[in-house]
Amino acid sequence: MRVEIVAVGTELLLGQLADTNSRWLGEQLAANGVISTFHQHVDDDHLRMVLALRTALARSDGVIVCGGLGPTQDDLTREAIAAVMGVELVRDPAIETRIESMFASRGREMPDNNRRQADVPVGAQVIEQRRGTAPGLLCPIGRKVLYAVPGVPHELEEMFERAIAPDLRSRLAAGGETGTIASRVLRTWGTSESGLAEALDGYAKDLDGSSCTLAFLASGIEGLKVRVTTRAPSEEAARRSLAAEEATVRAILAQRFGDVVFGVDDETMEDVVAGQLRRRSLTLAVAESLTGGLVASRLVNVDGASEWFRGAIVSYAGDVKQALLGVPDGPVVTPEAAEAMARGVRSVLRSDVGLALTGVAGPEPDEGIEVGTVFVGLAIGDEAPTSIRLRLPGDRQRVRDYATISALDWVRRALASLG
Amino acid sequence: MRVEIVAVGTELLLGQLADTNSRWLGEQLAANGVISTFHQHVDDDHLRMVLALRTALARSDGVIVCGGLGPTQDDLTREAIAAVMGVELVRDPAIETRIESMFASRGREMPDNNRRQADVPVGAQVIEQRRGTAPGLLCPIGRKVLYAVPGVPHELEEMFERAIAPDLRSRLAAGGETGTIASRVLRTWGTSESGLAEALDGYAKDLDGSSCTLAFLASGIEGLKVRVTTRAPSEEAARRSLAAEEATVRAILAQRFGDVVFGVDDETMEDVVAGQLRRRSLTLAVAESLTGGLVASRLVNVDGASEWFRGAIVSYAGDVKQALLGVPDGPVVTPEAAEAMARGVRSVLRSDVGLALTGVAGPEPDEGIEVGTVFVGLAIGDEAPTSIRLRLPGDRQRVRDYATISALDWVRRALASLG
Repeated sequence: MRVEIVAVGTELLLGQLADTNSRWLGEQLAANGVISTFHQHVDDDHLRMVLALRTALARSDGVIVCGGLGPTQDDLTREAIAAVMGVELVRDPAIETRIESMFASRGREMPDNNRRQADVPVGAQVIEQRRGTAPGLLCPIGRKVLYAVPGVPHELEEMFERAIAPDLRSRLAAGGETGTIASRVLRTWGTSESGLAEALDGYAKDLDGSSCTLAFLASGIEGLKVRVTTRAPSEEAARRSLAAEEATVRAILAQRFGDVVFGVDDETMEDVVAGQLRRRSLTLAVAESLTGGLVASRLVNVDGASEWFRGAIVSYAGDVKQALLGVPDGPVVTPEAAEAMARGVRSVLRSDVGLALTGVAGPEPDEGIEVGTVFVGLAIGDEAPTSIRLRLPGDRQRVRDYATISALDWVRRALASLG
Repeated sequence: MRVEIVAVGTELLLGQLADTNSRWLGEQLAANGVISTFHQHVDDDHLRMVLALRTALARSDGVIVCGGLGPTQDDLTREAIAAVMGVELVRDPAIETRIESMFASRGREMPDNNRRQADVPVGAQVIEQRRGTAPGLLCPIGRKVLYAVPGVPHELEEMFERAIAPDLRSRLAAGGETGTIASRVLRTWGTSESGLAEALDGYAKDLDGSSCTLAFLASGIEGLKVRVTTRAPSEEAARRSLAAEEATVRAILAQRFGDVVFGVDDETMEDVVAGQLRRRSLTLAVAESLTGGLVASRLVNVDGASEWFRGAIVSYAGDVKQALLGVPDGPVVTPEAAEAMARGVRSVLRSDVGLALTGVAGPEPDEGIEVGTVFVGLAIGDEAPTSIRLRLPGDRQRVRDYATISALDWVRRALASLG
């Protein structure tokens, strides 16, 4: 069964409001085993809404319309649905009374406009409203179905869970479609999107015609994601299928690229590094130049960071590197400077591990060094510090994001190699 | 002229990725006087993509397709466009060479997959790619037009501004549509969204039926935005109308809340503070605790930050505050600690101005102090440092974002009061 989401509202089209509803509903539909292959946004215009709904009904088995159920003149969803169904709107006195008493309970008189919210297309069932004034609608159209819910997220979410999800599940069962869609994201760092795709090309072809699909997503500071999605008759079967596919993907990537998979699903690079530090009872301090505090600000997003994070020194001005971190006089975008910074911050902030970044974020080259050149220094315990050189693409912001995840990835690999 | 946006990607349909592109494009189209009445999302499926594009071309004058131009097997936009145009794809050797040399400049070999990004439908013009590997496409289809851009936001944005917006404007002019939609955003800090809406309620009612509209947008670390939008026959008329409306809104807000408007349009709080520091030839250093480097990482986003930004000390561990910044022993979430941190960082990093933040971001209270309590210390020159107390709502991330913009807003007000 395929369900299309139609979100209504001029503010969505003008970019004045982010459409969080379609995203939430997309997630929920997948979790219920329903496929969603199209979404639409349409502005508050009767004819265009009718067109959008007809388009959706023609290419999908069901439609969820969000928004346009409010009391004002630009709330036109009820009228558009009646037009699509080819029926009249009839005012429902029970709903009218309910809305009146809601206003009364707040000590206010109901504006006349709100009576429109009691209009119901003939043949539609009402989805009771429990969190606001606008009821939802469940409209059978031939063998297809159209649901209307308010655009207010917490009203929509409650109605979906209480009324729409069960109705969808019973339709799936009646059509012999039982099952669930589940997915697993492997987060990687250290190769390119096209490199990943090429390595997994043969595997992806093998999946053709199976119940699994593979996708890639470049997410900047969050890493390069590989997503495996599966369709299975039960949640248990989906879990088993995902576990098997995950193992295959991991094996292919490990053989081709080594240790590039750093996390799963919502796990960030800083979560992983935090876990390693905690397991080894090590503390970390950071010296940042071009990233200007970005590495530290990511690290403190991890719950309980105070257990292992000592702090950071953002040595943006060159002389701060020398005065505070003991970097020798001379150029500061060098492997030696990165290593000195790592050693210096470890000593000044008294941590076990010192991480340092120095480089050129742009827009102009600095000290004759190209934009995107970054040196990362790492000092673990009393051992001699080491450094790596990165060459990163993109503008100022991008170089900083990539430098941040690359530096943390290096910490991850270094800590892993401690055994 | 009506332009429809089609965003491609299974991850959008599954709710795994928020569609920020349609929103950004919707805003830009409106600013260019183009009406957008429909958006679609479609998954990575050839036939459904063709259907979505045909639907869009049937009901709109132009289409912008975002995404699906990457190098992998599930990037199918080029093929779908060729099918809609009824033409072949031909590989462009110039693009191929360009992508090869991009890989070479990073010292890597180009995976074979990337060659697909050089495929161009016959009759399409190439929009040169300046920030990544996938070029865009400009495809005339009868009297209509279809543009394809990558889904990566900063690549899409650059291409839209450089190639698509000018093309749309010349099409509008050719069609005799000379009107324009323009808007102005006033960024505010120091009051609530509902407070703003209430203060501007009478004004908003006066706008009813005029060519202007008013909207509010809470944007976290970017401030609370008030946007005035106007439709006018010419850019000059739009500018005049916006200037008049801006003056009215500013007057109402100033009378009600004082100095809450800090910036206009894209101007961030850090831009404003940077401008003030530069004008006064002052340098700034920051001591951060709960924000963990977030304030510093925002400041270095301003071009030329090295002129006035000395650096930061992220004193996450309590003893770092004492050892490095000279905070007296005892509790560290107090006005006195914030003031000592501001004085300390000013002295250690040798700046004119020292800004400090200490507080409780959550999830748990600390030192018996409620989540959301933040003290901001400020030391200007050799004068005695001062501090303010903030009580901020929300989760960990939100408290940090609000603390960051609030602290910078305080610097802004303090520097302004120096006269």
